[in-house]
Amino acid sequence: MAKEVVIIGGGISGIFVLKNLLAKKDEVKEGLHVTLLKREKSGWVSVCGLPYALRRWYEIDKTEINKPQFFIDQGVDFRTETEAVQISVEERMVTLDTSEVLSYDYLVIATGRKPSVPAVVAEAKLEGVYTLNNEADARKIEAAMNKEGMKHAFVRGRGINGLQAAVAFATKGLKTTVLGGPPSLLPSGLDPDMGDMVKEWLEKKGIRFILEHKPLTALKGDGGRLKSVVVGDEEIPADIAVIAIGAEPNTKLASNAGIDVGAHGGIITDKVMHVQRSGCPIANVYALGDCVEVIDGITHRSRLSQYASTAVVQAKIIADNILGELTGRPELYSSYEPCLSPSVADISGLLVGSVGVTTEAARMAGIKTISGKATKLIKARYFPGASSLTLKLIFDAYTTKVLGAQMVGEATVAERVNEFTVAIRAGITARELRTMERSFDPSLAQLVDVTIDAAENALGLL
Amino acid sequence: MAKEVVIIGGGISGIFVLKNLLAKKDEVKEGLHVTLLKREKSGWVSVCGLPYALRRWYEIDKTEINKPQFFIDQGVDFRTETEAVQISVEERMVTLDTSEVLSYDYLVIATGRKPSVPAVVAEAKLEGVYTLNNEADARKIEAAMNKEGMKHAFVRGRGINGLQAAVAFATKGLKTTVLGGPPSLLPSGLDPDMGDMVKEWLEKKGIRFILEHKPLTALKGDGGRLKSVVVGDEEIPADIAVIAIGAEPNTKLASNAGIDVGAHGGIITDKVMHVQRSGCPIANVYALGDCVEVIDGITHRSRLSQYASTAVVQAKIIADNILGELTGRPELYSSYEPCLSPSVADISGLLVGSVGVTTEAARMAGIKTISGKATKLIKARYFPGASSLTLKLIFDAYTTKVLGAQMVGEATVAERVNEFTVAIRAGITARELRTMERSFDPSLAQLVDVTIDAAENALGLL
Repeated sequence: MAKEVVIIGGGISGIFVLKNLLAKKDEVKEGLHVTLLKREKSGWVSVCGLPYALRRWYEIDKTEINKPQFFIDQGVDFRTETEAVQISVEERMVTLDTSEVLSYDYLVIATGRKPSVPAVVAEAKLEGVYTLNNEADARKIEAAMNKEGMKHAFVRGRGINGLQAAVAFATKGLKTTVLGGPPSLLPSGLDPDMGDMVKEWLEKKGIRFILEHKPLTALKGDGGRLKSVVVGDEEIPADIAVIAIGAEPNTKLASNAGIDVGAHGGIITDKVMHVQRSGCPIANVYALGDCVEVIDGITHRSRLSQYASTAVVQAKIIADNILGELTGRPELYSSYEPCLSPSVADISGLLVGSVGVTTEAARMAGIKTISGKATKLIKARYFPGASSLTLKLIFDAYTTKVLGAQMVGEATVAERVNEFTVAIRAGITARELRTMERSFDPSLAQLVDVTIDAAENALGLL
Repeated sequence: MAKEVVIIGGGISGIFVLKNLLAKKDEVKEGLHVTLLKREKSGWVSVCGLPYALRRWYEIDKTEINKPQFFIDQGVDFRTETEAVQISVEERMVTLDTSEVLSYDYLVIATGRKPSVPAVVAEAKLEGVYTLNNEADARKIEAAMNKEGMKHAFVRGRGINGLQAAVAFATKGLKTTVLGGPPSLLPSGLDPDMGDMVKEWLEKKGIRFILEHKPLTALKGDGGRLKSVVVGDEEIPADIAVIAIGAEPNTKLASNAGIDVGAHGGIITDKVMHVQRSGCPIANVYALGDCVEVIDGITHRSRLSQYASTAVVQAKIIADNILGELTGRPELYSSYEPCLSPSVADISGLLVGSVGVTTEAARMAGIKTISGKATKLIKARYFPGASSLTLKLIFDAYTTKVLGAQMVGEATVAERVNEFTVAIRAGITARELRTMERSFDPSLAQLVDVTIDAAENALGLL
């Protein structure tokens, strides 16, 4: 009888477990049947592509990369608008909202996250207030922001989602205010000095920032529609608002089944992404993505890493392990390494990237650091169109191993983040970085790259 | 009395030793005086920028980044049109072509390379035949290719210099033929399958390639000017020709002084770039750049690495060691690591990069390899302007550590080469590459990068 895999959740996490399983499905002798349960109507949607759709780079429809039918045609029981309401790990069964019960040989929990919403917002119950967490949210925001008479936008949150929403509003010509706590923007990836560079860039695009310990005290409406927000004692006009103060792992289904949840609210897994009960792994139940906790690659503490890039790696590990067992090919087995959360985003033309720890995150973990910073053109100055990049590197003060990298610039950021991911993983030191040869062509690089300058700055040599 | 450093050679190598010394000059208590001897008239010229000037991206003048006066103003005895004719390491003296004798505390030999020219070319003594090794060469080529009636160009050599010359000719509208040996283009960095991709790209630009064991048997002229070349028994019209079959280290001065020269014709150095006599390092004489041999980072054999990128790292090591001694700060000391020669070039819009060993170079060193290759868009397919990249990775067959990377594409190549430089240096394996998280934003990357696909292809998982 075919082996049965049930995947709960159809975001990037669930979809990528599915895709990886399908790629080797034919190698499973007894056959492999996969059921995917998805609350939304759509197939594979690139949620990360939605902010760009709001900036009018393309239609929202473009972000649906595969329709459900694409997977159904491959023999998948791809159920949209379907919700799992109960898991029984003892009986290996999942109960659906339709009361139907599915048995599984393997269960994958990919229940994602739900955006946090402050009480003052929830209680106001006003039209024109949104989160930006999925395709449906994006469609609502798009419809609202393009209505006649829209003039003012408000964003609560200075993380990546908040900034992307603010950029979309500012691009549309709305007068946009962002409220976030101190000290600066994108604090999970950037030190304040780097976050301030992003802030200055966005201020030039007309976005106003309030980065203080000021509460959002009220949302005011007119006929049920948002008209203004009150921050501290200032009333700010707002026709549309996005709330983007982070998202909590969706773990109710798992925790109701007795599965362990950690201090950050995410499901705890072992190295191959098995969930646990009272610290013991459950060999046929996996979890991944926005609903799980990861081990940080530098601090070795548990934390969340709610990136698509984290989820796709975990999806590979899970598929490797299920397929390794089902095909009798242990060489397929792989395990998940501590997480460095490399990230990059295009924020209104400014590319912002980071990987590893910030100075503050290191301090909180008792790691003493030194840092170095440099700003430099990314190609020979006599070349047309050379733009500059600012790079900040964080090193362990004792070993000078690189622990973190932060950068803002107009090009090469994504690839540099990947380079530092390898460097951090490999324990490369500031001195090694400083004398490591780099590819050179004057149309593409500088003879002495900004990396060398930042490393020398940290070592006190520049 | 001020310490005296004499640098022989004013290419990138000499200039970067000079620049690094100047940066910390004030920390030398007794003072530091530097003399640089340069055969040419110019200051710091970016030789790597010359091919782009021939493609009309900018004027040749732009490639002179600093005039001699820039260094003279900093107290440097910057002597142009001056040649050293003898070194005495016992007496610590250099004799110039003017018979003047300079004493030194430290000597830096940066005598560069001279382009190889086959006898049949040298003997023909025709106008219209050039090498492309320095600014003067570029000016001659520029003047010649822009003359009235230029129709046909010929290039001998399928390395980077030859291809850059061919691209300049083809861009100008000349019917261009390139003669090189088998099997394909850029063999020092690319396997034949990758070299063939470059060849196809350039053939579309109208360049013809003859990649066979066919000799260049004659150059024919009319009134002393080149009119055609004979390849095997085919006569090919040629109004202008560039000879780019490589370059030999300029070591006559060094070898006349008893300094050791290796099997590849380059000066032998120790890890801090000291030259040697009969295997013993000379503590105050350094050499670097195109005239020295390096130890290969994979094969651990001696070879040449005639890249500006290699020279700038060596220049740092030499300056570190001179300054470490003169300032009494041993923390400045650094040493030169085995070389991986990361390289990149824009060849008519196609970016070509490589680092580490090719399959053939590994084979010649007795290293068994496996390889993986993949072609993929470099950002989400729904993004406007997504272009694709082909990546080939070479792994040690036994350990699956990455030993080499080769790639062609329209973007991200230089930065990816740097990433693989770190990965090779760190001994990252194919399995590690495959599950290493990479930064993702759909406007800048794919969720599953071509790197993952190439690693899986090598492991037989794709």
